[in-house]
Amino acid sequence: MQSPQDWKCLMICKNVRSLQAYTPGEQPHDNSVIKLNTNENPYPPSPMVRAALSTFNCERLRLYPDPVCMRVRERIATIHGCSVEQVFVGNGSDEILALCTRAFVEHKGAVGYFEPSYSLYPVLSDIRAARRHPVDLNPDFSWRMPADYAADLFLITNPNAPTSLLHSISTIADFCSEFAGVVVVDEAYVDFADCNCMSLVLAQNNRNTLVMRTLSKSFSLAGLRFGYAVGPVELITALYKIKDSYNMDALALELGLAALNDLEYMRANVERITATRQSLTNALLQRGWRVCESQTNFLFASPPDGDARRVFELLKEHKIYTRYFPGETTGEYLRITVGTGEQCDALLEVI
Amino acid sequence: MQSPQDWKCLMICKNVRSLQAYTPGEQPHDNSVIKLNTNENPYPPSPMVRAALSTFNCERLRLYPDPVCMRVRERIATIHGCSVEQVFVGNGSDEILALCTRAFVEHKGAVGYFEPSYSLYPVLSDIRAARRHPVDLNPDFSWRMPADYAADLFLITNPNAPTSLLHSISTIADFCSEFAGVVVVDEAYVDFADCNCMSLVLAQNNRNTLVMRTLSKSFSLAGLRFGYAVGPVELITALYKIKDSYNMDALALELGLAALNDLEYMRANVERITATRQSLTNALLQRGWRVCESQTNFLFASPPDGDARRVFELLKEHKIYTRYFPGETTGEYLRITVGTGEQCDALLEVI
Repeated sequence: MQSPQDWKCLMICKNVRSLQAYTPGEQPHDNSVIKLNTNENPYPPSPMVRAALSTFNCERLRLYPDPVCMRVRERIATIHGCSVEQVFVGNGSDEILALCTRAFVEHKGAVGYFEPSYSLYPVLSDIRAARRHPVDLNPDFSWRMPADYAADLFLITNPNAPTSLLHSISTIADFCSEFAGVVVVDEAYVDFADCNCMSLVLAQNNRNTLVMRTLSKSFSLAGLRFGYAVGPVELITALYKIKDSYNMDALALELGLAALNDLEYMRANVERITATRQSLTNALLQRGWRVCESQTNFLFASPPDGDARRVFELLKEHKIYTRYFPGETTGEYLRITVGTGEQCDALLEVI
Repeated sequence: MQSPQDWKCLMICKNVRSLQAYTPGEQPHDNSVIKLNTNENPYPPSPMVRAALSTFNCERLRLYPDPVCMRVRERIATIHGCSVEQVFVGNGSDEILALCTRAFVEHKGAVGYFEPSYSLYPVLSDIRAARRHPVDLNPDFSWRMPADYAADLFLITNPNAPTSLLHSISTIADFCSEFAGVVVVDEAYVDFADCNCMSLVLAQNNRNTLVMRTLSKSFSLAGLRFGYAVGPVELITALYKIKDSYNMDALALELGLAALNDLEYMRANVERITATRQSLTNALLQRGWRVCESQTNFLFASPPDGDARRVFELLKEHKIYTRYFPGETTGEYLRITVGTGEQCDALLEVI
């Protein structure tokens, strides 16, 4: 006989019952904490975003927002020199990733990704009830695909997280041209890098690759939930067919547009952060740390004795939050978001 | 041999390739249009929402929002007298509906719903690659379940759209207690009705039923994307396991909370709209129309000659938008959102 508990569980899909949900980085309520744990931007959003917020007419909220986000898509198309039909706008890149698993992965299909990379990928695969098909990175965090490797969808973060390293564009291009399924290149951190895959996905011969961007990092808008994907019309159209009817709210559309209209401000912030990144890297190297050559707004660095967990806990005692990923390849490293110069100085003082 | 077009299509899931996407009601850019087509509220959101918007500190947007929406869930739990674990907050009710199809419908499972009802339901079933299993309502829009009917998930809009009619709470309760799968009672319009199913889902013996609410209609916040579900902890927990990490943005959480802190304003607006609903109903009855007894913020009404399409087009020529659903059971009716008194007078003048 079933207990009431069992009865309830049977109504929940098998893959959901056994699912281990994704754990986002901690969001402390204590304002005195120095938050270097979730790769947020230490500087505020553009003054144009603030202006858009303060002039937004509240009464507009009684109406449904534009279901196909035309104005921001036009702006994004202008920025990248493509058509609006090649642009999808989503409620954060996370929504777009989830949509990709549902648009491009058949039942019992496989989702590929590198390890280590964004720890959401295996969870997305589980949510889709797909087969996880990870590829371990080499000890130097480069990759070598196994012979006869196949998957419906392959998710690549580039530059990669948590390693902070950029896979070269030609490496990505070779991978995409040989891969039979859809490739998503998640460029969440690419504004902090030297190059990107946009021209690759906009090339005439590209049939299977999407690039994703977000306003969360370089545009200081993690709280807004605004991501976008660019790529072949057929793939973008598939995403539009399965998204929620009104996936973007009216405020996110207006403020996102304002941010995308002020690239100059974003770039100035990126320069400040990459300068701080360099000084923090140098300071850690001087202290005997190994530091990956970051192309992002965070460092992936290992203390002289390799005991990253101890440093993580020590910093936490001093109210400085970083992120630690246990495991064979990542366990000796700490992921440290590049904050302001003062925040990084405080971190160095504890170390 | 495959053409490039075929090649691309093969990467897209079969159910997505054949999918007919949902068509939202038209959102005209022309401000002179009288919009009675998408059941929006004609009055602005609460002054407390306006205040929350104008005092929102833009810099907060650089940080990720609360992934589990604790403050608004506490408020919702207080309103309904339940625990926060019984409350799920989503990016519009549409997100919650889509999550339900993924949490409660196994591969090759069935999604049930009445016809006519919310036309998104069959699309959600198709997106999930599930089997549509609709039940036709009787000509008077009541229902009689077929013998041996079964589905994994049953979606009921109550009061129903587009009919505007309320199924009695005891009818719903009987249905839920006999149904073996999960039932979602979508109460998008319930603030305009005489009763609701909240105490039904919060009863100790309820194991399979969720109620959904939205801020889109009675709270005048369709542009914000804010819906919530209340029900058994096990079902709510399943939704949390599969949602996007940060499904609600910081602004929606703040403004939604402000709206939920001003129930008085919402109720005063609902009273204005139900009064207008009564006068519009009377005026149409006087003109020989059949009018369903609305428990919503819209009317479902049939002109004397039954040619609703002609009236729909006539009104559109006069820049008054309503909604027309072709088909055997709905084709003689027009769905008219209850606007302001002036908007309804303008409509009556054309008729």
